[in-house]
Amino acid sequence: MWSDTKVSEQLGIRYPIIQAGMAGNTTPELVAHVSESGGLGTIGAGYFSLERLAAEIDAVKELTSQPFAVNLFVPNQQRMLPAQVDLMNAWLSPYRRALNLEEPVINLSQTQLLEAQIDLLIEKEVPVASFTFGIPDEKLIRKMHEHHIIVMGTATSIAEAAANEIAGMDMIVVQGSEAGGHRGSFIKEKGEYPMIGSISLIPQTADAVSVPVIAAGGIMEGRGVLASLVLGASGVQMGTAFLTSQESGADIAYKQAILNSTDTSTVLTNAFSGKMARGIRNDFINYLSEFNGEVPGYPIQNQLTSGIRKASTAQHNDKLMSLWSGQTPKLATSRSASDIIAIIVQQIEGMTQNGIHR
Amino acid sequence: MWSDTKVSEQLGIRYPIIQAGMAGNTTPELVAHVSESGGLGTIGAGYFSLERLAAEIDAVKELTSQPFAVNLFVPNQQRMLPAQVDLMNAWLSPYRRALNLEEPVINLSQTQLLEAQIDLLIEKEVPVASFTFGIPDEKLIRKMHEHHIIVMGTATSIAEAAANEIAGMDMIVVQGSEAGGHRGSFIKEKGEYPMIGSISLIPQTADAVSVPVIAAGGIMEGRGVLASLVLGASGVQMGTAFLTSQESGADIAYKQAILNSTDTSTVLTNAFSGKMARGIRNDFINYLSEFNGEVPGYPIQNQLTSGIRKASTAQHNDKLMSLWSGQTPKLATSRSASDIIAIIVQQIEGMTQNGIHR
Repeated sequence: MWSDTKVSEQLGIRYPIIQAGMAGNTTPELVAHVSESGGLGTIGAGYFSLERLAAEIDAVKELTSQPFAVNLFVPNQQRMLPAQVDLMNAWLSPYRRALNLEEPVINLSQTQLLEAQIDLLIEKEVPVASFTFGIPDEKLIRKMHEHHIIVMGTATSIAEAAANEIAGMDMIVVQGSEAGGHRGSFIKEKGEYPMIGSISLIPQTADAVSVPVIAAGGIMEGRGVLASLVLGASGVQMGTAFLTSQESGADIAYKQAILNSTDTSTVLTNAFSGKMARGIRNDFINYLSEFNGEVPGYPIQNQLTSGIRKASTAQHNDKLMSLWSGQTPKLATSRSASDIIAIIVQQIEGMTQNGIHR
Repeated sequence: MWSDTKVSEQLGIRYPIIQAGMAGNTTPELVAHVSESGGLGTIGAGYFSLERLAAEIDAVKELTSQPFAVNLFVPNQQRMLPAQVDLMNAWLSPYRRALNLEEPVINLSQTQLLEAQIDLLIEKEVPVASFTFGIPDEKLIRKMHEHHIIVMGTATSIAEAAANEIAGMDMIVVQGSEAGGHRGSFIKEKGEYPMIGSISLIPQTADAVSVPVIAAGGIMEGRGVLASLVLGASGVQMGTAFLTSQESGADIAYKQAILNSTDTSTVLTNAFSGKMARGIRNDFINYLSEFNGEVPGYPIQNQLTSGIRKASTAQHNDKLMSLWSGQTPKLATSRSASDIIAIIVQQIEGMTQNGIHR
């Protein structure tokens, strides 16, 4: 049976389909409906306070007794350069004025947050924790293992997959260049982060590590899921496919922007957060591409643009929001999460039972 | 049967596996062995004179009576800026001095060549013609059709695939961002050429056009071939996989560079030809990345660097050659072309008969 993979077995789920932790856009309903439909829902907790994280976990547990995951960000080293921040604040000031916003105060004290978040997952008996932007300290991974949490890392190259395996990750999400949202990259090669397409990344990483790999990036329906398994993955992670779903917390203007996009609509940009991410090109990205300086790194730029993104979202104005999307928006639908999964299962069963006729 | 696709049927071949027209690196033996093994060999004729093209076609016909293709370049508009060329000549002069080379004379009179090449294909009854860098004039496509030549275009986006279909192409190679060698792109979107990974490009283009699509980019063995069919392709085109084969005409240093590479070894560069292409990073690419000006467009830069590439190839010096490669070099082997195809068939039959166990 195509769905009986190492990932399904280890996670205790029916189909090896994971909903990506789209920070800021998941709802307890989305997470629970994915898990109730046989996949693995994920709370996108990257930007959550401890209080919010506790509340979301409780809300998901109210809705389902199936396994689910929490996705967390591994903090990066950051250096605050006041002159750089001043330049960016000046550049952003027209938008702030138009939206009636104050200059934000940068807060870089969140590096201690990860440990507290992990303690909360342990306390709340969350079954699965996934990480991006790097690898948590090995003692944190050991601690999660001692409390029977399955730990999942993110890699964008063989070297990053190997580093995840050495650190003790139980499975590794391999994020292809097609993926929407932030790149999970953390090891540069000759000064550049990897940008490898899934058809190359999946087999090469699956051959290189002995833990299961989970394909991510551009996967929207049955064809992408089955192709990922054929390429060597033991499961898939899908973000954009669930972002436009009924249960997603994304703003209606954001959902519409994806549903109206085509294969060439996305670009890679660090304009919103200081970290490279794939999203639909809009006015904000175009405006920042004219900025004559270096964009402050993550999370500084993320905090500098946060108010603008929130205010424009409140106005359903897609010109200034981050419109993260993978490279396959033409296959996005506004179906419910459970329909999305049911159709994938149907499509794959059609292909595996009746053969592929091209 | 997985191999009975529209592409196999239309081309009259056993397996829908096409050897890419790697200009400068195919040999009559490679082309003939691929075709004899049930695939479609391709003469990479992009840089050939009419005399050389005639000789290669005759040599292939001596070796096989199976169908084969000739791959041709569609000429692009070009403008010669003498000051730009002078700057580049000055920048390249240290290499030319080291290799005892003269400054080349630029020759832009080759735009008439395509029509003469097509007439030669008709005269020699070549069964298949494939094109990249754009779409030939519709009257040339009609002429080929009148002479029963199957005509194949190249696309890197839905818009380019649609343009190929409208022009009358019988099938369309869709080149993912993973592909080695030159990008076939010819329609810019907001000033940029498309760069879409195969897992996104294949299903979106297959849904958008009614002619068969052929997946290209990063496909090396059974997993990539079957995954491409699952994604919606009716066939695959493989370059790097055949470039390191016994029969390939690539220099031994070039083959070794691929065999010693990893997933992050390639970069996109216009250093060698003035047109973007994916190859293994080497000294020449690094040196050109420091050039303080605009690299002349294709084919001017191609002619400016031609002597350097030829002389360094004669010395088996991989530092100054163009080392085109896709993003999956870890799966390259030095097997014969017929073994490469036989193993793919075996791998796919294993997966389709016994199921995929991940």
